[in-house]
Amino acid sequence: MTYYQKLTAHFAKLDRFNHLAAVCGWDQATMMPTGGNQARGEAMAELALHIHQLRTAPQLADWLSEAKEETLSIIEAANLREMTRSWQQATVIPDDLVQAKSLAGSRCEHAWRTQRANNDWQGFSTHFAEVVSLSQQEAQIRAQANNCSAYDAMLDLYEPGVDSAQLDGLFGDMKTWLTPLTQQIIEKQQSEQFIQPSGLFAVEQQQALGKYAMALLGFDFNHGRLDISSHPFCGGTPSDVRITTRYDESDFVQSLMGIIHETGHARYEQGLPKSLAGQPAGFARSMGLHESQSLFFEMQLGRSDAFISALTANIQRVFPHIDKAMLSEQNLLKLYTRVQPGFIRVDADEVTYPAHVMLRYEIERDLMNQKISYRDVPDLWQHKMQAYLGVDTAGNFKDGCMQDIHWTDGSFGYFPSYTLGAMYAAQFMAAIKSVIDVNQCIQTGDLAAIFAWLESHIWQKGSIMTTAELIKHATGESLNVEHFRLHLQSRYL
Amino acid sequence: MTYYQKLTAHFAKLDRFNHLAAVCGWDQATMMPTGGNQARGEAMAELALHIHQLRTAPQLADWLSEAKEETLSIIEAANLREMTRSWQQATVIPDDLVQAKSLAGSRCEHAWRTQRANNDWQGFSTHFAEVVSLSQQEAQIRAQANNCSAYDAMLDLYEPGVDSAQLDGLFGDMKTWLTPLTQQIIEKQQSEQFIQPSGLFAVEQQQALGKYAMALLGFDFNHGRLDISSHPFCGGTPSDVRITTRYDESDFVQSLMGIIHETGHARYEQGLPKSLAGQPAGFARSMGLHESQSLFFEMQLGRSDAFISALTANIQRVFPHIDKAMLSEQNLLKLYTRVQPGFIRVDADEVTYPAHVMLRYEIERDLMNQKISYRDVPDLWQHKMQAYLGVDTAGNFKDGCMQDIHWTDGSFGYFPSYTLGAMYAAQFMAAIKSVIDVNQCIQTGDLAAIFAWLESHIWQKGSIMTTAELIKHATGESLNVEHFRLHLQSRYL
Ligand SMILES: [Zn+2]
Ligand SMILES: [Zn+2]
Repeated sequence: MTYYQKLTAHFAKLDRFNHLAAVCGWDQATMMPTGGNQARGEAMAELALHIHQLRTAPQLADWLSEAKEETLSIIEAANLREMTRSWQQATVIPDDLVQAKSLAGSRCEHAWRTQRANNDWQGFSTHFAEVVSLSQQEAQIRAQANNCSAYDAMLDLYEPGVDSAQLDGLFGDMKTWLTPLTQQIIEKQQSEQFIQPSGLFAVEQQQALGKYAMALLGFDFNHGRLDISSHPFCGGTPSDVRITTRYDESDFVQSLMGIIHETGHARYEQGLPKSLAGQPAGFARSMGLHESQSLFFEMQLGRSDAFISALTANIQRVFPHIDKAMLSEQNLLKLYTRVQPGFIRVDADEVTYPAHVMLRYEIERDLMNQKISYRDVPDLWQHKMQAYLGVDTAGNFKDGCMQDIHWTDGSFGYFPSYTLGAMYAAQFMAAIKSVIDVNQCIQTGDLAAIFAWLESHIWQKGSIMTTAELIKHATGESLNVEHFRLHLQSRYL
Repeated sequence: MTYYQKLTAHFAKLDRFNHLAAVCGWDQATMMPTGGNQARGEAMAELALHIHQLRTAPQLADWLSEAKEETLSIIEAANLREMTRSWQQATVIPDDLVQAKSLAGSRCEHAWRTQRANNDWQGFSTHFAEVVSLSQQEAQIRAQANNCSAYDAMLDLYEPGVDSAQLDGLFGDMKTWLTPLTQQIIEKQQSEQFIQPSGLFAVEQQQALGKYAMALLGFDFNHGRLDISSHPFCGGTPSDVRITTRYDESDFVQSLMGIIHETGHARYEQGLPKSLAGQPAGFARSMGLHESQSLFFEMQLGRSDAFISALTANIQRVFPHIDKAMLSEQNLLKLYTRVQPGFIRVDADEVTYPAHVMLRYEIERDLMNQKISYRDVPDLWQHKMQAYLGVDTAGNFKDGCMQDIHWTDGSFGYFPSYTLGAMYAAQFMAAIKSVIDVNQCIQTGDLAAIFAWLESHIWQKGSIMTTAELIKHATGESLNVEHFRLHLQSRYL
């Protein structure tokens, strides 16, 4: 047995334990009665510890360096590179810091659930201070190992290959045009008439509609499910992808688009290369690329004129008792492309969303690089929300800096992925449109050519290439924010 | 840290991995799409291996013998006894035999699914021969360790403390009266008129009815769920018990009683001592005692005149479109107490069920003790079915010796648990009736006193006492088959 083979066996084992964690995590969010939470939490913590032990198993250091000397194919070499990355990320942080951060994270997240409801920044900030401090320690250790800035080291956990120099450039560019563009769009939409949903949209009917859209978008129900959870997500494993949504019986609009979004995540997972199943080179490339697929489905396809038009007849059929004017193609299109600055990131439209991300990026970057203190967060939040979106969050922590779960458990470096995803998605669509008549595909309901492009250019690539190589290979150029700007301009102006 | 404390920490960890196995097993049977089966099977096999490694961890031998010298409370001593039992059972069999049996079992069970459908004894017997041979090897090794017969060593896995001498006595007694009693009952019922269910019993309505019965029977929905699977079972963990059923939309009768049966299993699990959660002394005592709780709920409570009467109004309310005569108390009672010899154990009524068990007991006992060959099974089956139930299974392997899954994976020694459970249940009811007016409880819908008795005498005892001690302590006497005979006589004659 070669060292490379020993490694693939080890990582296959690791993947099988991750499979168990994915199923039990999904169950916890969708099926588990409340009373099961204590024991489930303990079982999952035990499993997380076991997974950590497998990721940091002492024999891996030797095996990884021995395997480097073996003759490997390009794909095997890529797999070894990703194994090494996973091992380095897991081993570089001392076990007691891992445990301290995990405990502080659980405490902070748990407290946050009530403190947010009570708009209690004061109470929250003591827990938050602890998480920030431990995350700063983590970032510094990772920075030393990676020879980069503290924040860049955290970013690398979610977006390998992307650093804050690149983000400063991308977001700096965007800043020059996003706020004026938003203003222009708002003015244009001001005079538009539209009808808000009203009536009963029963869960069963919404579910039927959601499954119809999933089928249209090629979701493989033999390898996945749709269920309900309070926070929508895409979980499970590539051969059994579990997506969730939540339903509001007074409005189907958000839920339907939420399902389309998660379907994008799901198809990426379902489309990953089976020959590399369970191996690091076979995993999704990055959080940003994952989001590029969900946003491709939601923003590039889902909210397009052609797709709304294709869905309209089915929407009308599923809700026969609802006013036809509300469910008209024109009205649905207006509802699905409405732009309005607001407090809450997860409710934001695609035009104002990047502003939410930029402000979080700037704050978390400076927090990790120890340029600011956790105490500065509310003021910075208020100031930046005012500057980017003209929204006043003074004293409103609940809908301000306390609105997201990400920082409560120390996931600093995650937020940029959302907007990188939007940019990648626009660039992919531009590349696809240069070879495929996308509107015609959507109008005829035959999306196969679009999915075939995504499958061969993105999904089937797993993590074999780096993100930069993948983007270049798929679109012929490096990440270029201009595609996103053109997309917004052509849809909204 | 004492050795006893080291052991409780180790067994708590083991329990947490068993928790993961229970959740993933439940998901596999209820939620998982077919395409997820391959990866799930691999993940669960990996987990089973890890659990086996924890059960046989090399340090346990020392810890167990050191802990024996420590000062322990009665409960701690019982826990140590059960830990030792678990360890001995897991370590006594060499790893290669464990693996060989597991592989042969999977192969045989997999082949059985189609071979049974094709009535293909010839094809099945080659796989079955392998499983029998490996199980015989296992039984001999266990017998040597336990200083008992081969079959008794297998029995000990499911019914610790019960041996074939005791079973020969119990079943020998039953044989003298069961067949004549069955004849008498059939003759009595021959002239009875009753109406078979007909009409549509929609799954949602059956579910609502099932949940109503579960609530009436004290199932704690904060610590459990009801779902659908092709083979009903009770799984999950004590703080999150998952019961399942299957629905036939042309007949609600079996499904409702199936739910009541699983509710009995569930309440035992939900009622286990929380102070011993995750520790061997806190687990259910035996398979027979588990079945005693499900059969107490199904046979002693569920099919009683008083309980059927208490359910009738709700059954009629749930199915308003169904003929009232069919749903009358008198008719339901007849349907729920109909006695009829048949081929299939799982479809048998409580009067003929023990005959199915006795014949399997006699065959598996002689198989494990190498008194007969696997080749003799069909003839013995045919002969005994004729003798005990007057039913001819010649050439019908499908509904004969190939009907059960138990022997396909080598679970020899399990079958007696079903009838031990029926006997225990009758004895518990007799003891309860000596202190509680059971019919009055059921008529007023206030079953709390009955459950309090079960909780304090059975559920809260976990595995602290041996089964024999538990029965004696709860009922004032050893297992006495007379209670079961009297129960059948008073209900059916
Ligand atoms: Zn997403
Ligand atoms: Zn049962």
